[in-house]
Amino acid sequence: MSVARANPPSATPSSATLRQQVYAQLRSAIEQGRWPAGMRLPPSRAHAGLLGVSRNTVLWAVQRLLAEGYVQARVGDGTYVAQALAKHGVGAPSNAQLHAPALVAPPRGLSRRGQLVADTAARWRPPLVAARAFRMGAPEVASFPFAVWDRLARQASQAQRAARAHYLDPAGDPDLRQAVAQWLWASRGIRCDAAQVVVCSGSQQGIDLIARLLLDVGEEVLVEDPCYPGIRASLLGHGALARPVPLDASGLCIAQGAAQWPAARMAVVTPTHQFPTGVRMDLPRRQALLQWARDHDAWVVEDDYDGEFQYGNAAQRVPALCSLPGSERVLYVGTFSKTLHPGMRLGFVVVPPALVEAFAMARAITDRHAPGDAQAVLARFIAEGHLLRHLRRMRELYLHRQQLLIGTLADASDGHWQLPASDRGMHLLHEVPTDTDDEPLARSAQAAGVMLVPLSRYAIHSPRRGWLLGYAGYGDEEIRAAARVVGALAGR
Amino acid sequence: MSVARANPPSATPSSATLRQQVYAQLRSAIEQGRWPAGMRLPPSRAHAGLLGVSRNTVLWAVQRLLAEGYVQARVGDGTYVAQALAKHGVGAPSNAQLHAPALVAPPRGLSRRGQLVADTAARWRPPLVAARAFRMGAPEVASFPFAVWDRLARQASQAQRAARAHYLDPAGDPDLRQAVAQWLWASRGIRCDAAQVVVCSGSQQGIDLIARLLLDVGEEVLVEDPCYPGIRASLLGHGALARPVPLDASGLCIAQGAAQWPAARMAVVTPTHQFPTGVRMDLPRRQALLQWARDHDAWVVEDDYDGEFQYGNAAQRVPALCSLPGSERVLYVGTFSKTLHPGMRLGFVVVPPALVEAFAMARAITDRHAPGDAQAVLARFIAEGHLLRHLRRMRELYLHRQQLLIGTLADASDGHWQLPASDRGMHLLHEVPTDTDDEPLARSAQAAGVMLVPLSRYAIHSPRRGWLLGYAGYGDEEIRAAARVVGALAGR
Repeated sequence: MSVARANPPSATPSSATLRQQVYAQLRSAIEQGRWPAGMRLPPSRAHAGLLGVSRNTVLWAVQRLLAEGYVQARVGDGTYVAQALAKHGVGAPSNAQLHAPALVAPPRGLSRRGQLVADTAARWRPPLVAARAFRMGAPEVASFPFAVWDRLARQASQAQRAARAHYLDPAGDPDLRQAVAQWLWASRGIRCDAAQVVVCSGSQQGIDLIARLLLDVGEEVLVEDPCYPGIRASLLGHGALARPVPLDASGLCIAQGAAQWPAARMAVVTPTHQFPTGVRMDLPRRQALLQWARDHDAWVVEDDYDGEFQYGNAAQRVPALCSLPGSERVLYVGTFSKTLHPGMRLGFVVVPPALVEAFAMARAITDRHAPGDAQAVLARFIAEGHLLRHLRRMRELYLHRQQLLIGTLADASDGHWQLPASDRGMHLLHEVPTDTDDEPLARSAQAAGVMLVPLSRYAIHSPRRGWLLGYAGYGDEEIRAAARVVGALAGR
Repeated sequence: MSVARANPPSATPSSATLRQQVYAQLRSAIEQGRWPAGMRLPPSRAHAGLLGVSRNTVLWAVQRLLAEGYVQARVGDGTYVAQALAKHGVGAPSNAQLHAPALVAPPRGLSRRGQLVADTAARWRPPLVAARAFRMGAPEVASFPFAVWDRLARQASQAQRAARAHYLDPAGDPDLRQAVAQWLWASRGIRCDAAQVVVCSGSQQGIDLIARLLLDVGEEVLVEDPCYPGIRASLLGHGALARPVPLDASGLCIAQGAAQWPAARMAVVTPTHQFPTGVRMDLPRRQALLQWARDHDAWVVEDDYDGEFQYGNAAQRVPALCSLPGSERVLYVGTFSKTLHPGMRLGFVVVPPALVEAFAMARAITDRHAPGDAQAVLARFIAEGHLLRHLRRMRELYLHRQQLLIGTLADASDGHWQLPASDRGMHLLHEVPTDTDDEPLARSAQAAGVMLVPLSRYAIHSPRRGWLLGYAGYGDEEIRAAARVVGALAGR
């Protein structure tokens, strides 16, 4: 495997000017039609060599053109001059616009913010193929207790069914909010009132409502680098600026982030099990993050996407960041997409009491409320202990699948891939030296029918490289078969 | 009943200046604390007399302070200086901000646009009380065929259930999109491809996605006056400016709207059965509206909320605006909240092919997609003819309920309220002379347990007054009892 190293990103004034120059040159080439619509951009390394600048300089300029819609990325297939420009043209943005995030004249009749949303497709697009090992984020669904669920649904009388069929409270079903609050206390150490729980349609809507209510266009948000692209897409779609902050063994380097981005108004973190690197934020770092939020009057968004999948006994599980003293500025985002299944589209946000009304109103004008039946059944599912039982089974199953993955991969790769075991989560990371090109192996795996997401696709500026393997949603046979494919490719 | 007439709204330069002066005076009183937080504003009539200006001038200024969060309305309880200002203060907006819609410094830690969302609560808040005659917009749900629905759900195998439990296409279940496209052709005369149907969570989300993708902050949208406040709240929450256009017997007066608001980029209409006045837009007006959209490169949003409830035989039903030639700039918003039930949270938007990708992406970063099971069951419910059967029953039932309402009201009011029959819809309007105060009777009815929404609550500048009676969702006994209450109050 070839390992290439580029110059580290630099932020000195002269390099900043150089990046601006390269950016302006490329934009002008596109605007004046020298680079026509549909043209594939030269590979960044070759391009950098041609211009006599570092590869990072070119990457920075292309990233900016991407954000502004001049070029579009196709995953695994390079970057192209955007098609829409050819038909409609792009006016030269004013100086004010150059300092605003990605606000260029909208092609295709979209508004500027609509274009921002459409542009996110160039960075992230939820995979639509059937879940296949080792796709990330897919929980076990084949053995979901649909029969139990249906039985709870059937227990409702016709009158109860009719009551749930009306327009309902945008903040959510009262029984479900109560059940979630009790569950959070028992499972995640979070003390909150049921009234602070706002039901939403998975964590994606939670982030969307948070961005809409708490961020204005051009405001800065600290994000982990690498991080989950769906969150970044949501922030960018709202015109917020996602500012990458490196991770170390203690989690998000908040001191570094605070120094580099002093205007940041929010930080989005996955402290229990960082997505995707798997690091757990330790207590001193958690306290530093909460202190930063208080000092800067900033918000911390805790995305606890897989916090329930800590395999050890309950006493050893790390509680949520939101359970710590001084966490008044933390908004907790939870989802049933991992604990139950994604097709359910239910999750929740725990917000400070003063914000509940605004969240309910935002939900009301966004999509009114969550479906009545599903909320009511989920409330009973939790209250009657089925969630607890399901999670107990899933923790055992996921631990088993992780061990199977590690063992099969080690065997199939002749010991080349020895993944370190983890006591939590739904995926593992096989990390390699920084700036390794992790795309070729992913493409080979893809050709062999295995999804092996390169870490670089989650990185913003991070030079960390490797491959991610989601194991939670796949049976033993599928894990063995896919691990053998990867092992054979990796062992070459 | 007291009938008061105020001066008609005027838009001459001098009156505009006067309104600005009154507005500036009131804002300064609040900012400098002369009007403390929590203070109730004087009644508009008394206030206007004191200042020597028309009541409309005062109302305009207060409306603007409401939009900017300086004051808050409590339904049926006047207008108060906002509480939040006392604690946080409101900076004097810059001149640029004065020309932007409602962008003042955010109290309570909300962003400016978050404050816009929260402010909408002062104008509109979905009712949370159990549906009660004559609440608007509630369909019959007590006799919904839940058993049929559940049977279709049970027909799915465990493997099918599992397949629907994964992350799915944000644009919607392919079978559902196909079923909707076929249904729209058969029932509403709309020729569209299944690929143009984007599934969403009721019409509220349809409007939300449209506003987000096609409108920027400060852009103008023509709305019917009076109109549905949920749509207006969505537009305002996105920073768009809802510009009221009067209605006549042919529907929205597009020529007048175009002349008064030449910069408008969109019009939102309910052409089949205007909400809430019930007028149907005639063909010449429809053609004029489509011509306006083409001439101005503007969008027309057709909200067909109750288009399926035309009681006559199928041949007499008026097809959708979207079915006309030249309707390329129409976005059609449909919902199953009325045709089936609101608790289901399913609807759809039909968009031009070039916009499908952007809508799917907006849905993906907003809340990913609709629940898998509900989409799959609904697709079968439509394909197997259950929607057709249900609507046939509902049309008969609603016609019967409307007749019962008209008859009982006429009897109970000693002939004072003779509501004209309608061949469509889910509600009736009893209109009275313009500028009548329609709040007192609504309050009396409320005290007697009957919801009787005054037309003025849906009006922006319109002086039209009256009361709205939703009859679709209530059984014979409830209609009779509520009609007797209203009749007794109205017959006095």
